[in-house]
Amino acid sequence: MKKYTFVLAPDSFKESLTAKEVCIAMESGLKAVFPDATFIHVPMADGGEGTTQSLIDATGGTLHPLIVTGPLGTPVEACFGITGNGRTAIIEMASASGIQHTRRENRSPLSATTYGTGELIRACLDKGVSEIILGIGGSATNDGGAGMARALGVCFYDAQDTLLPEGGGALSRLKRIDISGLDPRLAAVNIQIACDVTNPLCGGSGASAIFGPQKGATPEMVTRLDESLRHYADVISRQLGKNVADIPGSGAAGGLGAGLLAFTGCTLRPGIDIVLQYSQLDQKLIGADYCFTGEGRIDHQTAFGKTPFGVAKAAKAAGIPVIAITGSIGEGTEALYPQGIGAIFSIVPQADSLPHLLRKGAVNITQTCENVGRLIKLAAQ
Amino acid sequence: MKKYTFVLAPDSFKESLTAKEVCIAMESGLKAVFPDATFIHVPMADGGEGTTQSLIDATGGTLHPLIVTGPLGTPVEACFGITGNGRTAIIEMASASGIQHTRRENRSPLSATTYGTGELIRACLDKGVSEIILGIGGSATNDGGAGMARALGVCFYDAQDTLLPEGGGALSRLKRIDISGLDPRLAAVNIQIACDVTNPLCGGSGASAIFGPQKGATPEMVTRLDESLRHYADVISRQLGKNVADIPGSGAAGGLGAGLLAFTGCTLRPGIDIVLQYSQLDQKLIGADYCFTGEGRIDHQTAFGKTPFGVAKAAKAAGIPVIAITGSIGEGTEALYPQGIGAIFSIVPQADSLPHLLRKGAVNITQTCENVGRLIKLAAQ
Repeated sequence: MKKYTFVLAPDSFKESLTAKEVCIAMESGLKAVFPDATFIHVPMADGGEGTTQSLIDATGGTLHPLIVTGPLGTPVEACFGITGNGRTAIIEMASASGIQHTRRENRSPLSATTYGTGELIRACLDKGVSEIILGIGGSATNDGGAGMARALGVCFYDAQDTLLPEGGGALSRLKRIDISGLDPRLAAVNIQIACDVTNPLCGGSGASAIFGPQKGATPEMVTRLDESLRHYADVISRQLGKNVADIPGSGAAGGLGAGLLAFTGCTLRPGIDIVLQYSQLDQKLIGADYCFTGEGRIDHQTAFGKTPFGVAKAAKAAGIPVIAITGSIGEGTEALYPQGIGAIFSIVPQADSLPHLLRKGAVNITQTCENVGRLIKLAAQ
Repeated sequence: MKKYTFVLAPDSFKESLTAKEVCIAMESGLKAVFPDATFIHVPMADGGEGTTQSLIDATGGTLHPLIVTGPLGTPVEACFGITGNGRTAIIEMASASGIQHTRRENRSPLSATTYGTGELIRACLDKGVSEIILGIGGSATNDGGAGMARALGVCFYDAQDTLLPEGGGALSRLKRIDISGLDPRLAAVNIQIACDVTNPLCGGSGASAIFGPQKGATPEMVTRLDESLRHYADVISRQLGKNVADIPGSGAAGGLGAGLLAFTGCTLRPGIDIVLQYSQLDQKLIGADYCFTGEGRIDHQTAFGKTPFGVAKAAKAAGIPVIAITGSIGEGTEALYPQGIGAIFSIVPQADSLPHLLRKGAVNITQTCENVGRLIKLAAQ
């Protein structure tokens, strides 16, 4: 029998398995059919939740927990990753400043801060990395990244030359920005921002209007925050000479995109492109027979930068067929076929509740991959 | 591209789709990938529920509704089928005498009767058929087939030469059987009984002990029914010279197996074997590339005479790979691989309730078969 090579490049199955665990379950199923096959594990992500874990798993890196300032000012436990070669740090902003650190009743979009995200960046600089990958998404904040900048040494003053308090609400009183204390190590580091939205900082499709309400902002708060961020951008423009407000993605994560653009030399890119680069999936696909990908859910949104879409793009370029497996096939998946997804299979064996299926993820992935493998073997005969 | 031939030989998906409807949904999915393929529809069954519909669909036959005596003596609507060539009748005993005609609170195993099944047989004889296929399963009765025999002209008397009432309970008083009035047309008809159990009429693994409780029999009733059927078999043995009590399957359907063996020249066979014969699946498989089968649920019981197992047996003999699809993959399906099932795929796209999934059967079958087809195409390249 032909000796197959399978590249296994799934995202995590949210609330069920990490991407690495998905790789292991996939291999287990395929190995039952192809015991002599070569399996190359490439745990993937798209810049969202699970990106740190996947990239450290993909590179043999390490995870570093850290107590930082949460979005509401109280300490939270966050973490960052360092790749196996020690050169690249991976941060998810939500780890420090995410909405999961708040409860519905105490959400506070006017005062929530990205200070903890800045602390994570500082901790990465302390590790001596030369690159930082920063995933921004899932934030509880609307502060234009001012808190992040503060943690890195920037000072924000009002007309009385008093330091502003944390939060986007206070930025309406911003008079002067002092960047003389900005951590000088930032200038030597390549910062890649994994950003999947193109919203500008302000206006009808800006940070406050689009993402404010899900962070607890009332219509009045949205108006106030939008005006504050516009003023903040004006001050940045006047004093730093950077026009960040209209750059696509500046409105991501409550304007953290704008803050990063203003105070660091970062590049905003789709998260999946960054992960594809750092995972070196294209290299690993060379000579493979099949590439398996997957995610907890696959639907019409998958074509907008999700992992299976990015994997399909890379595999299509390499001429390798892609098989996707998922815990949930939604509407519109036929749009993925022309993008390079060869076939999609659900792992759900029968009518069942989501909580139970989340617990059975590994078994169901293994069973599905075994049957996919059996069909591959049959059809190749 | 190679022109494929697909034989589609599923069972019905109970409470969702008839076997014919499953064939149509399968073709729809495969046709999206292989527009030039040949599709051969062979709606299948295993002698249980749906057998009549599948065999008339497979042969272009007709369905005949009929009011008959239900298991509790009240009229029920039943039906039988006639194959397209008019020569073979198909009856499901449950259509006339099934447990679905009773409610839990009025089940009456002592007096329930198979009279309606006899009426269906008589109606088939009126149609001039030369063969009758009779599926026995799902019965509400425990009368040893005495009711069925009565409807065909047999008389059962007690010691006072009074006719016995309906039901298995009264058979303890059986003194004499008069078969002089038995419908003479029965002798000219080939009767094939689709029977998937091997229980004898009496004893610990007999009709009353094993199947009585699910028909509402208390332990005392089970004892009484078992003694009645033993006496019934003794009288049959003495007066008709037929020892039916120990023949495997005589205990099927509350002893209807024994009654059919006593009063007709029938043959008991596994239901799937009868359906395989009448559907001529082996002929239709010649030259096919793939055979698709399926059933609402596939699990370790599938290997005990269910449709996907029978289809796999036939396809294995013909050297055709079999792909099974199902609404529910249970435990132990790996036992089916050596039997000829190449691969098994669930049609369930995501966590969902059974009632909703039953309504979405056709869409989900189509989507699954399209993706299976896509993988076949990929793997053959």
